[in-house]
Amino acid sequence: MSTTIPAKAYAVDSATSPFKLFNFERRAPRDDDVVIRIHYCGICHTDIHQVENEWKSSKYPLVPGHEITGVVEQVGSKVKHFSVGDHAGIGCMVDSCRQCKPCKKDMEQNCADTCLTYSSTELDKITPTYGGYSNVIVVREHFVCKIPKNLPLDAAAPLLCAGVTTYSPMRRFNVGKDTKLGVVGLGGLGHVAIKLGAAMGAHVTVISTSESKRNDAIKLGAKAFVVSKDSEQMKAIENSLDIIIDTVSATHDVNTLIKLLTVEGVFCLVGAPTKPLEINAFSLIRKQPVVTGSCIGGMKETQEMLDFCSKHNITCDIEKIEATPETIKTAYDRTVKADVKYRFVLNMLDAFK
Amino acid sequence: MSTTIPAKAYAVDSATSPFKLFNFERRAPRDDDVVIRIHYCGICHTDIHQVENEWKSSKYPLVPGHEITGVVEQVGSKVKHFSVGDHAGIGCMVDSCRQCKPCKKDMEQNCADTCLTYSSTELDKITPTYGGYSNVIVVREHFVCKIPKNLPLDAAAPLLCAGVTTYSPMRRFNVGKDTKLGVVGLGGLGHVAIKLGAAMGAHVTVISTSESKRNDAIKLGAKAFVVSKDSEQMKAIENSLDIIIDTVSATHDVNTLIKLLTVEGVFCLVGAPTKPLEINAFSLIRKQPVVTGSCIGGMKETQEMLDFCSKHNITCDIEKIEATPETIKTAYDRTVKADVKYRFVLNMLDAFK
Repeated sequence: MSTTIPAKAYAVDSATSPFKLFNFERRAPRDDDVVIRIHYCGICHTDIHQVENEWKSSKYPLVPGHEITGVVEQVGSKVKHFSVGDHAGIGCMVDSCRQCKPCKKDMEQNCADTCLTYSSTELDKITPTYGGYSNVIVVREHFVCKIPKNLPLDAAAPLLCAGVTTYSPMRRFNVGKDTKLGVVGLGGLGHVAIKLGAAMGAHVTVISTSESKRNDAIKLGAKAFVVSKDSEQMKAIENSLDIIIDTVSATHDVNTLIKLLTVEGVFCLVGAPTKPLEINAFSLIRKQPVVTGSCIGGMKETQEMLDFCSKHNITCDIEKIEATPETIKTAYDRTVKADVKYRFVLNMLDAFK
Repeated sequence: MSTTIPAKAYAVDSATSPFKLFNFERRAPRDDDVVIRIHYCGICHTDIHQVENEWKSSKYPLVPGHEITGVVEQVGSKVKHFSVGDHAGIGCMVDSCRQCKPCKKDMEQNCADTCLTYSSTELDKITPTYGGYSNVIVVREHFVCKIPKNLPLDAAAPLLCAGVTTYSPMRRFNVGKDTKLGVVGLGGLGHVAIKLGAAMGAHVTVISTSESKRNDAIKLGAKAFVVSKDSEQMKAIENSLDIIIDTVSATHDVNTLIKLLTVEGVFCLVGAPTKPLEINAFSLIRKQPVVTGSCIGGMKETQEMLDFCSKHNITCDIEKIEATPETIKTAYDRTVKADVKYRFVLNMLDAFK
């Protein structure tokens, strides 16, 4: 009979509380559970939204973190695909009903009962989930990914959210050789989108508010760069893009972006602006674009993305930092200002020594 | 050498002028032109938008009308598919470049040079086009449809716009047996959408602001009816519809409609609200719907729609009226108040006697 596992984490008690040390117990591992010693955890902008309760759904105490990598420390008797010592990753989900139509279609992210990695509950709807700003985690095998050994655990961590969030719509809409792909915003999501798109053979155009990002965009694999505030530059690429991945969470005009699409082109939002998007009826009627959004990806697709990254040697550009309440706060402040290239990753292995 | 054809029409000279008799010349028929004696012309809401210059693009004098049926009176030497006496229909377009990518894909409506049937110009960008509130029209064969003989010319007229506008997205998104189809708004477009959807085998749910339309919706072929203002009725059909065709041109909340869709379901706007649609980011991200619009259809698809209607004996429910400046004004006033079941059709054959 297994017992609960003592865990440490950094948590907040309310939208205005500072991070502090939080001692708690991870559940006693079940037959199909994998116990993972957390090495690294990326800081996603969602962590900040949730800590500050911007979406009015936060559950406290709140341990953020859903870009988790580590090493398998223990496996249940029915675990099939993991062994002690394997490199493992956890993304935004830790469970789902696995019976419903979306679950059966490997789209666990669309299950009505999805258990998010933090600020959520387990399937019992009672037990809180705590995320990756922690030293250990217990997760049902189905929701654990293998991190291929050629990918460093630190720079691979943000792939679990930023990677699959941009990979999934590219696959859904068949990005491939010579696809004209637009990436709006060059931040955590955008920089991975460029790398993935380029590796898929797409012709990537980055659309950014800031001319200062041109060189970086090209270095990351973009073939073209357009400043969104320059109406002439924008005009020059009207009707040219097959698909746009929009990673921007600030309020912005999407009608000018839809103009860049070919007939029946795809506009996919992966950022999460707080204010509604204002879309003109004629933007939809004239060119019949597919306007959609995307929410991470299923578990099968997340593994496929990791294997794709392994094959193409793709990881994230990160700033690795020690994990303390103070460093987390500083990292949050800088993330809000987009002052990071392109993702902070917390070293959790040494955090609680 | 052919000569120009004298024509009569009802036209307005400005956004605030009344309709009046307008004498003009249709072009001398070319080798590939069909001359059609106009029998009937439907009154589309677009006519009113254009007459009143609501889209700021109207060209005066303006002869509205793009739901035209009549009988072929003369054909050019290179006309292949029409003979004198054939029943013919003209919709929203009378020409396009026929060279570009959309044109080659039979999507002439997406050509950058599409010549609209009225308030537009011919390919020379100079010669104005005049619509169907007239007694005769000269159109390039490619833009003329055959009206199957089992469809009465009066009740078939609105199919040329309302019919193809709703048929096209249903085909694009594979509406068929047991598709759960939502139709929002029961007016000119909505009532055809119900008939077409039912004939395709779909389970049609009508979503309307008014309980008073329930019986009509069912009679037209709907299997279910939901009052959009009743949150319980709306809640009961959440996550159930595969595709929604939204025919409403008034400002309305589309987020509550998107909630009715299944994962990756389709929301297609065919109405044209003046104010932008406000779409929450989470409406797009959570369920990855395809939000799109549709603009009439190509010529091949329009003919396919007419043949489909012929096979299933589908026409529009109309109020047929004599065409005078006064009757047109009354019909416009009633159309604006949605006081018509479901389309006014002008008798043009007897208009100028």
